[in-house]
Amino acid sequence: MSILYDERVDGALPKVDKAALLAELREQLPDMAVLHTQEDLKPYECDGLSAYTTTPMMVVLPERIEQVECLLKLCYQRSVPVVARGAGTGLSGGALPLVQGILLVMARFKHILEVNPEGRFARVQPGVRNLAISQAAAPYDLYYAPDPSSQIACSIGGNVAENAGGVHCLKYGLTVHNLLKIDILSVEGERMTLGSDALDSPGFDLLALFTGSEGMLGIITEVTVKLLPKPQVAKVLLASFDSVENAGHAVAEIIAAGIIPGGLEMMDNLAIRAAEDFIHAGYPVDAEAILLCELDGVEADVQDECERVRAVLDKAGATEVRMARDEVERVKFWAGRKNAFPAVGRISADYYCMDGTIPRRELPGVLKGIRELSEAFGLRVANVFHAGDGNMHPLILFDANQPGELERAESLGGKILELCVKVGGSITGEHGVGREKINQMCVQFNNDELTLFHAVKAAFDPNGLLNPGKNIPTLHRCAEFGAMHVHHGKLPFPELERF
Amino acid sequence: MSILYDERVDGALPKVDKAALLAELREQLPDMAVLHTQEDLKPYECDGLSAYTTTPMMVVLPERIEQVECLLKLCYQRSVPVVARGAGTGLSGGALPLVQGILLVMARFKHILEVNPEGRFARVQPGVRNLAISQAAAPYDLYYAPDPSSQIACSIGGNVAENAGGVHCLKYGLTVHNLLKIDILSVEGERMTLGSDALDSPGFDLLALFTGSEGMLGIITEVTVKLLPKPQVAKVLLASFDSVENAGHAVAEIIAAGIIPGGLEMMDNLAIRAAEDFIHAGYPVDAEAILLCELDGVEADVQDECERVRAVLDKAGATEVRMARDEVERVKFWAGRKNAFPAVGRISADYYCMDGTIPRRELPGVLKGIRELSEAFGLRVANVFHAGDGNMHPLILFDANQPGELERAESLGGKILELCVKVGGSITGEHGVGREKINQMCVQFNNDELTLFHAVKAAFDPNGLLNPGKNIPTLHRCAEFGAMHVHHGKLPFPELERF
Repeated sequence: MSILYDERVDGALPKVDKAALLAELREQLPDMAVLHTQEDLKPYECDGLSAYTTTPMMVVLPERIEQVECLLKLCYQRSVPVVARGAGTGLSGGALPLVQGILLVMARFKHILEVNPEGRFARVQPGVRNLAISQAAAPYDLYYAPDPSSQIACSIGGNVAENAGGVHCLKYGLTVHNLLKIDILSVEGERMTLGSDALDSPGFDLLALFTGSEGMLGIITEVTVKLLPKPQVAKVLLASFDSVENAGHAVAEIIAAGIIPGGLEMMDNLAIRAAEDFIHAGYPVDAEAILLCELDGVEADVQDECERVRAVLDKAGATEVRMARDEVERVKFWAGRKNAFPAVGRISADYYCMDGTIPRRELPGVLKGIRELSEAFGLRVANVFHAGDGNMHPLILFDANQPGELERAESLGGKILELCVKVGGSITGEHGVGREKINQMCVQFNNDELTLFHAVKAAFDPNGLLNPGKNIPTLHRCAEFGAMHVHHGKLPFPELERF
Repeated sequence: MSILYDERVDGALPKVDKAALLAELREQLPDMAVLHTQEDLKPYECDGLSAYTTTPMMVVLPERIEQVECLLKLCYQRSVPVVARGAGTGLSGGALPLVQGILLVMARFKHILEVNPEGRFARVQPGVRNLAISQAAAPYDLYYAPDPSSQIACSIGGNVAENAGGVHCLKYGLTVHNLLKIDILSVEGERMTLGSDALDSPGFDLLALFTGSEGMLGIITEVTVKLLPKPQVAKVLLASFDSVENAGHAVAEIIAAGIIPGGLEMMDNLAIRAAEDFIHAGYPVDAEAILLCELDGVEADVQDECERVRAVLDKAGATEVRMARDEVERVKFWAGRKNAFPAVGRISADYYCMDGTIPRRELPGVLKGIRELSEAFGLRVANVFHAGDGNMHPLILFDANQPGELERAESLGGKILELCVKVGGSITGEHGVGREKINQMCVQFNNDELTLFHAVKAAFDPNGLLNPGKNIPTLHRCAEFGAMHVHHGKLPFPELERF
């Protein structure tokens, strides 16, 4: 699958003398691992969005902050672009390398520096895996709340760069809500701290600005995250519905009743059947939609909330409401949800995952709109998503080997995101913009707003050396966007040099 | 009282031809109220921090966004500085006017545009009072959570500009956590929207960046806030301690037990006595410190949490724990806390309120440090504060008529803030930096970090026309800071022209 990949970014960058740079790196940083042969570079040519591949000029794997500092100073002096990469699990091509740039892999920074149960924080290096933080905090009955599906593999540095989410973000917030401070290196290699150990920090909120900035403002060298006490109990309710619209209404009703579940997820019939075939979670395969609603906290609260949610679900027209009998069934219910993407992968040659976020109250209307678009484009769409957040993940099923299907999938995806923007929503919830959604940014923002983004970028990185070509489109690109047609990653207008 | 006021800001600004500007305003904006006589300008010469006063060149009171747009364009063309002001209740001099600038009063924008119970948000103009939002939402059993003490008077636009807090921010977050989106006008008068109706927005997080930026990045024209369901029940526990350190430990223990109270406030003996004399709240006047701990939610949870908190308080050495018998007593307990500042005003000629925030675990040590500093400086300090947040409000008691006391109070205040920074905290929690704490910003941040703040400011406002001289000190100012001595608002070195 290859969608909207744009090679013009590399084309517009200054040419770098690779041999001279390599020699200089070896002289100045003799003990830093540098990869530069085609064979060694291969594993780094894409991130979790395997649709786009580019062979980086060079990959560096530092182990000490001093090495990163020295590297950045050198790249700044030589005008060499730098793309940072964590574990490479990102889903929007945010860590896609550049032919004319260095890929700075932070994976070797994997030390947990401090777990402080009294202060309820952990101080970790950026390459530490998301789940490893919770594992290190477990002896104190604490955990780190944001839990992207890739949490077993993804790194905290990448989580900050993408403002990662997860099933529990409805109640516990996104990455940005679970950070105390980060240490960064600027593009010039200067050390700075954003945020503080206290709950607030004066001046502009650069910690929030940096979170989700996709490696465009600086390099993260240390992260201090908040830790939360593990809930005593967690119960999950599975509710069946005879229409996705009713399920959408029920989501709004639960939240309107003042209940904030630990997780509130929706799957439609296509997703239910795919997951059930794969995982045998015990899902009702005839339901048009199911909701999984997890309630967590202390025993008494959870009991009380379960009853209230059950009442709301009944009133909203649920055809069946079941509580997971025990921990085994609860884990099974979630396993079906967490494996829904690979499950859909089993029933379709290819799929394209969207990540639009909409106001919750728009769920029924947007789900209906997606069904209509699906019919108009003649492509199946499975819906599996964080319903409580309004963060949708429509999966467009297609076969890249059937002529025209890839283009139809691309167009349908674009239409779905535009529908999200139209109802007051956003083109991405937790996956980021990266290279993938850069054109939809032109739909989301006007020229004044994009100009402001560029000005903020320039405040941190005046020469545009950090992860160029991601996240924020140029006005020129947006002007072209309407007319531009992209086929299999190749631009029809090779004469266009600017990006 | 006058502390650290610096007239050099005005001195460094370009001279404006007042008569010509007035004529132009009258021509271009004939229906906008403009105040310009000494008598009319008087009420606008300070905000809630009455220590600093400056007569603005001119005050404008627009009523329509088009007027603000036109005004900003005109000021941008003519290089006239603009200071925005909401209700003027700010406590750090953030809305202090300029002799060479326009004071843009947004108080007439007081329409509540929409209360949406299904979407759980309210869309309001910036001059709407904080409490008025909760009042408008009350028929739907919803409310707006952040509750600064000035909530009866302060405006939501000012709340966004200062990232206002309040008693309930421990559980429900600061202003930044309770916003969906804001509409702004740039310094050039361009309309932009930051954030979205959905829970996340792509690109850089400019909504968070703007929140707390103290009028330096643009003018707020509309605010969409999140509304929360009103808790069914609220109970408050009053715990007495024989030392402030023990009370500080108890705060850390409550949070460590995984309980997030709706409010968790501390008062020391001096504050307890002052408040009791004034309000007769029923406080134990012999206690060295009290904690007020409010638990809110549904009945069953609150009962359960009260028992858990009581156990923690007993174990932490509370000498007495009382639950407010009924709603009347609960309101009384809070009335004592909320009136603690004016109560302290009754026992001292003057007081100086600090706003440092520290990691909770540092509370006992910092309270001890403040007591030692208080003794060393020979000035009484009353402590009344948001203990759960680590947001301290030491009130330094002094008499400006006693020679040397003002200077001692200023120095003591500076030392307390530096102590907060030293333990990993911050010089402000909810009051903002404004003009008051601009020197302490030099303690909080290094030159690279301050340079970055200036670069971000310049991305929004390249000519520095929006609220110059607040929030972010120049590097030059910081270089001077160590040696600078300021007396009654007059600089000893009038030859220093740059600020």
